[in-house]
Amino acid sequence: MPVPTLDSLDALRLRVREFAAARAWDRYHTPKNLAMALSVEAAELVEPFQWLTAEESGSLDPDKLEAVRQEIADVLIYLTRLADVLEIDPLQAAADKLELNARRYPVEKAHGNALKYDEFSE
Amino acid sequence: MPVPTLDSLDALRLRVREFAAARAWDRYHTPKNLAMALSVEAAELVEPFQWLTAEESGSLDPDKLEAVRQEIADVLIYLTRLADVLEIDPLQAAADKLELNARRYPVEKAHGNALKYDEFSE
Amino acid sequence: MPVPTLDSLDALRLRVREFAAARAWDRYHTPKNLAMALSVEAAELVEPFQWLTAEESGSLDPDKLEAVRQEIADVLIYLTRLADVLEIDPLQAAADKLELNARRYPVEKAHGNALKYDEFSE
Amino acid sequence: MPVPTLDSLDALRLRVREFAAARAWDRYHTPKNLAMALSVEAAELVEPFQWLTAEESGSLDPDKLEAVRQEIADVLIYLTRLADVLEIDPLQAAADKLELNARRYPVEKAHGNALKYDEFSE
Repeated sequence: MPVPTLDSLDALRLRVREFAAARAWDRYHTPKNLAMALSVEAAELVEPFQWLTAEESGSLDPDKLEAVRQEIADVLIYLTRLADVLEIDPLQAAADKLELNARRYPVEKAHGNALKYDEFSE
Repeated sequence: MPVPTLDSLDALRLRVREFAAARAWDRYHTPKNLAMALSVEAAELVEPFQWLTAEESGSLDPDKLEAVRQEIADVLIYLTRLADVLEIDPLQAAADKLELNARRYPVEKAHGNALKYDEFSE
Repeated sequence: MPVPTLDSLDALRLRVREFAAARAWDRYHTPKNLAMALSVEAAELVEPFQWLTAEESGSLDPDKLEAVRQEIADVLIYLTRLADVLEIDPLQAAADKLELNARRYPVEKAHGNALKYDEFSE
Repeated sequence: MPVPTLDSLDALRLRVREFAAARAWDRYHTPKNLAMALSVEAAELVEPFQWLTAEESGSLDPDKLEAVRQEIADVLIYLTRLADVLEIDPLQAAADKLELNARRYPVEKAHGNALKYDEFSE
């Protein structure tokens, strides 16, 4: 049976919701617990990179790349679930945040540096 | 000027890519650095919940909810950027992982508990 | 052969330093990498708690408690190593931070609540 | 009034315990919450390093070094508090873990590489 593909973040949201409901996991899926779980998965995503140089991190061997791919999946799954529980639209949130970032990081100040917006000289 | 909405994760991927390119941030955006940045944002998402009870975490006041919404955005932005740099399709990765999870967590074993798949009794 | 005990944080610092030197790990032990490794271990310390209620988290079964004990050890080892590489005295840093916290969180304002210091009403 | 120094991890443990008791924070200090708080501080310790090269991370400017010093303090404070609540001796735990690591990472196999112990060839 082929893996059913997902054509949108919204389809993922519904599939994850069903997955949790079928297992009666809703009582575990408080926002607090989901945020924790997401941060644990984020750390598992960091783990394969921790001793690599910047260069090495861009040319992972196939096993590590597959491990990273699975951790990216886990982060996305928990992020989608958390947003669903909180009734937040993550794509709209990201669009809004990019707008804010565009104001905070104008090209002429942010070009070629990694300063935080509160570190820019006037 | 209204905020342009995003209608897909792929549209977000392209917008984040342009955002980084316009600021010449590509040299900072190694997979290693992006994974770190994502984990930092994930922790910022945890922070508003750390002293709340499970119940409180489900009824955030509007200020905290907006803070959480922005952190969800940050996590999604970095996740999308990392996946783009690694040429990973995050939706497909999530679909594949849910398939794996469905095998690891069959309903009859996982129902109503939070055991890890390697903790199920035979 | 009995496990040699450690009678101080400074003794731990020296033992970890020798451990790394004997394996020629110094080139991996940049502050950046050590901070990452520490955060990964911190997440592994969170993991056993993520689906537990507050009450359950206070009465871990012996296996989980031993796992938690090992993660506490890992965090302390990397923290000690990072502080050593940066020539920071962690105990003095903690003493100074507690002084700062005592000013930020005066008993009469902080008693019985979990507000952040910038959330106190005047 | 000079800052009272701390001459041991055990003295820190008692001072943090008093600090929490004076503010009636014990009900917030469940193991679950303390593990979360520790991981949030660990991420704040990562944050100053996220866009730095390995080399830059070894020569922080004084402001960043002081920020890092404070985050090291925060991690140590929460680690000490968590261990106290769980009645774990962190120094003994670290001593035991270093013994385990010495067996897992024998010098002849671990020298000059960053492989995980389960990645060593036989």
